[in-house]
Amino acid sequence: MISRLSTDEARSLLMECRIGRLGCVYENGPYVVPVNYVLDGENIYVHSLGGRKVTALRANPKACLQVDEVVDEYHWRSAIAFGVFGELSDGAEHTRAVRLLLSRFPQLTPVESVPVHDGQSSVILFRIQVEEITGVAEK
Amino acid sequence: MISRLSTDEARSLLMECRIGRLGCVYENGPYVVPVNYVLDGENIYVHSLGGRKVTALRANPKACLQVDEVVDEYHWRSAIAFGVFGELSDGAEHTRAVRLLLSRFPQLTPVESVPVHDGQSSVILFRIQVEEITGVAEK
Repeated sequence: MISRLSTDEARSLLMECRIGRLGCVYENGPYVVPVNYVLDGENIYVHSLGGRKVTALRANPKACLQVDEVVDEYHWRSAIAFGVFGELSDGAEHTRAVRLLLSRFPQLTPVESVPVHDGQSSVILFRIQVEEITGVAEK
Repeated sequence: MISRLSTDEARSLLMECRIGRLGCVYENGPYVVPVNYVLDGENIYVHSLGGRKVTALRANPKACLQVDEVVDEYHWRSAIAFGVFGELSDGAEHTRAVRLLLSRFPQLTPVESVPVHDGQSSVILFRIQVEEITGVAEK
């Protein structure tokens, strides 16, 4: 039995999970990578290395984050948030996002939590401003 | 330490996993859903309900399948296959794909393994013809 989750149920799942799969569009094709993230209710914050996903999101800021909780092939919940990518380089939101991420992922070092810009290997802090949340479950 | 997986290592991870996150492009934005799949070395076969992903893939056949094996935030492997979507409705490849999927997911019933076409809830069998495989690991 597959059924839709309510928006609240889907948001709860997104708030519980620690790893999500970030989707973006790269050269008119999909690209998906696992990321650690925090959802504060309205925005998803991600602290990650640069590379293809950041290149893609700078060119097309449409993003999604999919999470799931799988018991087995026939018992699972999945939720997805759609939104718009934006980079955070400083300011109050940046400070708050670093704090949120550090509270959830204490092993992030202060060095890692400061964005540096040295090419492919740079660490980027970005938000996905959530516009829509949906989810489904099978049980 | 984040490092690239070789193509063979990434393919092995894709062959081991049972659940992947299928990425596609829907109205110029990304869409990601969890799917069960089988990779036979060159093609990924997926048996799934219709809906947004199938609508998206019919309009833009570029697809990817991302899998990962996560121990914790700092110890994981992730692989992604990029390829082209194609529906299978009958023929030798269809029969072989059903057999592969049933051998891996025995709970798929024969009824489920026959595609039916009755709108949103129809079951679809499709391949992603793999063109590129990459992967990364942190350890």
